[in-house]
Amino acid sequence: MSPTPPPPPTGIGILGLGTIGTGTARVLADNGALIADRIGHPLRLVAAADLDPDRDRGVDLSSCLLTTHPERVVDHSDVAVVVELIGGTTLARDLVVRALSAGKSVVTANKALLAHHGDELTRLAAANGVALRFEAAVGGGIPIIKALTKGLIANRIEAVYGIVNGTCNYILTEMATTGAPFERVLAEASRLGYAEADPTFDIEGIDAAHKAAILARLAFDTPVDLAAIPVEGISKLASIDTDFARRLGYVVKLVAIAKRAGPRIDVRVHPTMLPEGHLLAKVDGVFNAVVVKGDAVGETLYYGAGAGAMPTASAVVADIAEVATALARGDVRAADPCAHRVVERRELLPLEEVETGYYLRFEVQDRPGVLSRISGVLGSHQISIAQVRQHGRDREGTVPLVILTHRAREGSVRAALVEIESLGVTEGAAVVVRVEG
Amino acid sequence: MSPTPPPPPTGIGILGLGTIGTGTARVLADNGALIADRIGHPLRLVAAADLDPDRDRGVDLSSCLLTTHPERVVDHSDVAVVVELIGGTTLARDLVVRALSAGKSVVTANKALLAHHGDELTRLAAANGVALRFEAAVGGGIPIIKALTKGLIANRIEAVYGIVNGTCNYILTEMATTGAPFERVLAEASRLGYAEADPTFDIEGIDAAHKAAILARLAFDTPVDLAAIPVEGISKLASIDTDFARRLGYVVKLVAIAKRAGPRIDVRVHPTMLPEGHLLAKVDGVFNAVVVKGDAVGETLYYGAGAGAMPTASAVVADIAEVATALARGDVRAADPCAHRVVERRELLPLEEVETGYYLRFEVQDRPGVLSRISGVLGSHQISIAQVRQHGRDREGTVPLVILTHRAREGSVRAALVEIESLGVTEGAAVVVRVEG
Repeated sequence: MSPTPPPPPTGIGILGLGTIGTGTARVLADNGALIADRIGHPLRLVAAADLDPDRDRGVDLSSCLLTTHPERVVDHSDVAVVVELIGGTTLARDLVVRALSAGKSVVTANKALLAHHGDELTRLAAANGVALRFEAAVGGGIPIIKALTKGLIANRIEAVYGIVNGTCNYILTEMATTGAPFERVLAEASRLGYAEADPTFDIEGIDAAHKAAILARLAFDTPVDLAAIPVEGISKLASIDTDFARRLGYVVKLVAIAKRAGPRIDVRVHPTMLPEGHLLAKVDGVFNAVVVKGDAVGETLYYGAGAGAMPTASAVVADIAEVATALARGDVRAADPCAHRVVERRELLPLEEVETGYYLRFEVQDRPGVLSRISGVLGSHQISIAQVRQHGRDREGTVPLVILTHRAREGSVRAALVEIESLGVTEGAAVVVRVEG
Repeated sequence: MSPTPPPPPTGIGILGLGTIGTGTARVLADNGALIADRIGHPLRLVAAADLDPDRDRGVDLSSCLLTTHPERVVDHSDVAVVVELIGGTTLARDLVVRALSAGKSVVTANKALLAHHGDELTRLAAANGVALRFEAAVGGGIPIIKALTKGLIANRIEAVYGIVNGTCNYILTEMATTGAPFERVLAEASRLGYAEADPTFDIEGIDAAHKAAILARLAFDTPVDLAAIPVEGISKLASIDTDFARRLGYVVKLVAIAKRAGPRIDVRVHPTMLPEGHLLAKVDGVFNAVVVKGDAVGETLYYGAGAGAMPTASAVVADIAEVATALARGDVRAADPCAHRVVERRELLPLEEVETGYYLRFEVQDRPGVLSRISGVLGSHQISIAQVRQHGRDREGTVPLVILTHRAREGSVRAALVEIESLGVTEGAAVVVRVEG
């Protein structure tokens, strides 16, 4: 008689017991029985790695191998699902590649990893017949990846766009409601834990660009070259701009945009003026919201906490549950909504070809003829003006002049701005905010 | 050599080529190739039944068996997924039972069927090892069922509530923005096709109650007795109430509510005053939105078109795609998020025990002492007053008196209202609107 083969592994291993890793362990501990009732089998956390594994995290990890060596978790004979919560694109990438190559499924919240290496990792997962899941990488606890890949699978997606960075949204909400300047609100956000010690990734739009790349890849079934996405952060916005926006009936949000543009795709991240009645205009503070527009369903919106230990863990554990269920049924690829997707490369629309509305703020000399000369240049570039506002004088000799344009081509606007600056009637560069919706 | 067994059936059969059935056929025709690219195999519509099968629906059904006999579709040897879009709870129920009993999976948009017979049909699906899917039954195209059962599977759900009837929301939005009376707005809604010829199901809250029953069953893993759900529609609301609400900083929405209440559940449908800053307050017109609050994720919201041929078809086809994918992998129950759920009966909280805020509008005699006597009665029932408003006189001898209470027990409010009516200072019954959020 030949010996019975050992049962296939079904355990879960976590890499990184930081905020989200600890949250994940806590959700598994607190709601494990409930989830087991729902899916028909238990979720077993069998191993976890962290640089400081013995710190008291307020969650019982006594039945779980704790190690400082993440490879031991990846290689653990009973680990079938590797949960990567280390972050970054170096060690995390090596470990994810190691796991997928060993036939283990991966759940991750790592947007940078997916934005930089999503295509390679998706192919590697497919080649090894395992699942790669990343619900927590965009929108924290909001099940937006599932909505896009499964809930709206019957749709040709026309556009996905939204507020996907809570730090920026907190800052912009505070600037708009209190009138405080950017630097002061950023300092307050850091104090409250809403901004990292080095906030560059958030405030310069890089984090939002990672998410835009992930959403665009799923929406349009195409690889996306992260480096080619036009990205602008919020650090150049002054409260005078959020104030002008309000007077004009708009709010300013950092929006990640991915739209179909004929055979190409229009993907970009920048501060965006939205009409105050827009779905996203009321998304305030650290919350996230994403609009998905499909050809059959029309516009849908998904809103919730975009960050935080427990919301993010909610998404991580949902992925774990789906992978574990598929494992228990012997078909782990069933848990990967991208396993079968046919990918076709679509080019990015160059920023010069984007057409949208523009908010232009100039500091102009307070003398006759200036508006006429500036508007003349805009007209000569086929840029038509929707509204003009001039504030009271705010510093010696110059006043802010705000022009809201109708839809115009970015290339034309840029050319016009160069020409306007050469007129010698403005001071410094114009502040440009694109207007959508 | 024994002959190769025939391949298992994988075809789709549609029962009912009305608005949603035709929309479903259209989405399968228009986006079939795209969906096939995503899931790795085609979706084949092989049969459809309708009383008028030959009518030109603007969609090519030439490769599909068209019949007036729905049983032929259910019994068709190549139909593995039966899509029930007939509606109602008689013929539709018989056909769904017939399909499930024959080992065929069912996709339906029929909220009445699920609200009345959801438990029985879920058990029948499980007993036959097939899937029963109903994404389109709540919130039209919004993938709320998937969000609740899969996206938020890691959460103990605390509450699900939302605007789930587009007809009522259209009427309330119009009443609030134009001040027009209920009857006139209802007539306009009928003219625009937003209300049925017999609008009773919608305006009396019955349709919303069906959806509340479905959501509560999924959120709390319990059978729900539809007949025991307290339901109030919007037909008693006057525009004076939507107007008072606005002045008080609220909007009135018909809200379907399902909350955890200790070991019991609090499920109800009624006009509800929400603060104007509430997530649901800006959901206007025929749109739907549902808030799901989970212990880990916090509050999330899902918004989109709650009705209409194409949005509803988007949800129907998403279900079809998931069932067909599971079929192709040989495990159709993988497509049923409820297949394994352990169900435990939870009692409904009786309405008398509900605690919430109350908007009370009395028509009172315009003479001294009336407010004192009414507020005295409220006080004697431990009901504390948050705000009082009195409008100008609107008819001979009486004026409207509006009292907004703090949270109070419904039973106490009802007892107080009986006592107030017996004072002889009011005319007619008080208008009562519950206040949430």
